[in-house]
Amino acid sequence: MLDVREIDLSAVREQVDTVLEDFIEDKARAAVGRKLPPEVAGTLRDFLTAGGKRIRALLCVVGWHAAGGGEGEDRTAILRVAASLELFVAFALIHDDIMDDSATRRGRPAVHRALRTRLGPSPRAERLGAGGALLVGNLALIWAQELLHTAELSVQRRRAVHALYDAMLEEVMYGQYVDVMGIGADDDIDAALQIVRCKTATATVERPLQLGAAVAGADDTTLGLFTELGLPLGEAFQIRDDLLDVFGSADGACAPGLGDLREGKHTVLLARGLRAATAAQRRRLRHLVGRDDLDERGAAEVRAILEETGAREHTEHMITSRYEQVLRVLEASALPPAVSRALHGLAVTATRYTS
Amino acid sequence: MLDVREIDLSAVREQVDTVLEDFIEDKARAAVGRKLPPEVAGTLRDFLTAGGKRIRALLCVVGWHAAGGGEGEDRTAILRVAASLELFVAFALIHDDIMDDSATRRGRPAVHRALRTRLGPSPRAERLGAGGALLVGNLALIWAQELLHTAELSVQRRRAVHALYDAMLEEVMYGQYVDVMGIGADDDIDAALQIVRCKTATATVERPLQLGAAVAGADDTTLGLFTELGLPLGEAFQIRDDLLDVFGSADGACAPGLGDLREGKHTVLLARGLRAATAAQRRRLRHLVGRDDLDERGAAEVRAILEETGAREHTEHMITSRYEQVLRVLEASALPPAVSRALHGLAVTATRYTS
Repeated sequence: MLDVREIDLSAVREQVDTVLEDFIEDKARAAVGRKLPPEVAGTLRDFLTAGGKRIRALLCVVGWHAAGGGEGEDRTAILRVAASLELFVAFALIHDDIMDDSATRRGRPAVHRALRTRLGPSPRAERLGAGGALLVGNLALIWAQELLHTAELSVQRRRAVHALYDAMLEEVMYGQYVDVMGIGADDDIDAALQIVRCKTATATVERPLQLGAAVAGADDTTLGLFTELGLPLGEAFQIRDDLLDVFGSADGACAPGLGDLREGKHTVLLARGLRAATAAQRRRLRHLVGRDDLDERGAAEVRAILEETGAREHTEHMITSRYEQVLRVLEASALPPAVSRALHGLAVTATRYTS
Repeated sequence: MLDVREIDLSAVREQVDTVLEDFIEDKARAAVGRKLPPEVAGTLRDFLTAGGKRIRALLCVVGWHAAGGGEGEDRTAILRVAASLELFVAFALIHDDIMDDSATRRGRPAVHRALRTRLGPSPRAERLGAGGALLVGNLALIWAQELLHTAELSVQRRRAVHALYDAMLEEVMYGQYVDVMGIGADDDIDAALQIVRCKTATATVERPLQLGAAVAGADDTTLGLFTELGLPLGEAFQIRDDLLDVFGSADGACAPGLGDLREGKHTVLLARGLRAATAAQRRRLRHLVGRDDLDERGAAEVRAILEETGAREHTEHMITSRYEQVLRVLEASALPPAVSRALHGLAVTATRYTS
């Protein structure tokens, strides 16, 4: 059936969102019953409804189809695992925003900023707001795991799902740790790529696909195929994200920003710029990037250097070559055509999206 | 057998520590193999070896004995669950220290302070050190859950263990959230007790006992007994901890401190003091408590007010009445004598310890 019918990704998205809404609604209700603050669940609900492409949840369900999950089967378990990934993302982003002290997320104040504001003008509001957000993030992770624990799976499939999920969580934490603690030189492209791989690439594509496949009892061949596919696609996705942050999108829907530049984020783009720069350009880049007070003028100078050194173009090539790699793997694979088409569509969305 | 032999708690402690050491050693080795920083595992190993009574792990194993686990049986699963609780404690304390910006823990610099120092004199070292510690704490939680996921349990027992563990994690996060966000008036004894219950009481005694019992397939009667026993004992334990923080221990092994007073922690002790204070005393308490710059002289004044109002004595009574409640429950229970004796011993350690 999958060979002729398409996977209806918008229906999947709705189903995942329903699982999330019901789960969080239950949490809010239970909190009220126990005289605990229902606002924690409310904060997560608002965070989830404010945006997000649910790309991990969708990839998870596509992975399930690839390994034989399909029409007419009970989808309860796969939807819980897919929904769990979206709570995991909420956890990672809420904590990320604390660490970077980001002002906004999905067009709203970041959680720690919103809580800080609620605490009013107190010298401790900053620290307590960050503390409250840290706990909301922790609950997102704890609830993500609860969704897994309550998914009905056979002993063997549960073991496979947990092994993949635990590995994913560990990878992301290691990637963030290396990033935060600034291990590795700022012009080391390989180090920057390792952070990309750990922090986002595997957790965005490879692991979600594998998790879905594991729910359907996939063999090692399918899991291996998703590594082959997931690494280039995940990297392309993150490198695109880094480019968008600095240069914005071609259609103007995403404006060029100061976030990564002020943060001094160790991106492939920046590492390439530093590598290809003249001594004078390198001095300017190191002077400007990583300053909290970097302004639009300074950012424009950084962007100009990243253009002049060819770093921007080189980084675009890195995305293209990864995208082509994904196409080659898809073509050579024995995946059902509907799965292949869905993955191709998601690859385009992830690497070429304009906002 | 349990009726005549004692439960050898020091042997249990050693076994739990071995599980933890092996697990963390494997993590460090795996990190080296993947060119990831083994220092994260090292930080957790140092944290665990620096101290801790392993009271939760011990209670977990005692709970297992109470529900029929015993000599000659395979202890692999129960030891993994018990060890998991100690990694959970590491997670909670590392995050707690970030939120309170505590300088030390177990006689060493708190993790976020140690990482801050390592980052050197940079204006960002404070934020990045806190970020690194947040991630180390997250890994402690993720690894705590990995220990659970890899414990061999039947489907039914696994479900019971996860339900209890997830409930425990949620309770602790809610308790900390209410504490951090300052919900509830500072002279509200019931609100302070609710924080005690959520944040520490259930996670210290009730849940560890129940988790151990669930590993042995306990019925609802045993789980209910552990709630009856766990709540008063857990509360007594935490109230003792709050008293020790402000007044130190009778034998001088634990010095009176400034931590909770500077933090303005909503303790039962403080709530009772505010309730029983004169208007003038209340003004002084509110002026002094919760200031980062509170000095020894100010703290001495706070302590004097807590003595004069009878708050200290009242709080001691609260511990005693809970301890007696524990004894009554133990006597009325049909627990094997060796289990009863072990619990009695742990109750004395937890509520009367002098350092």
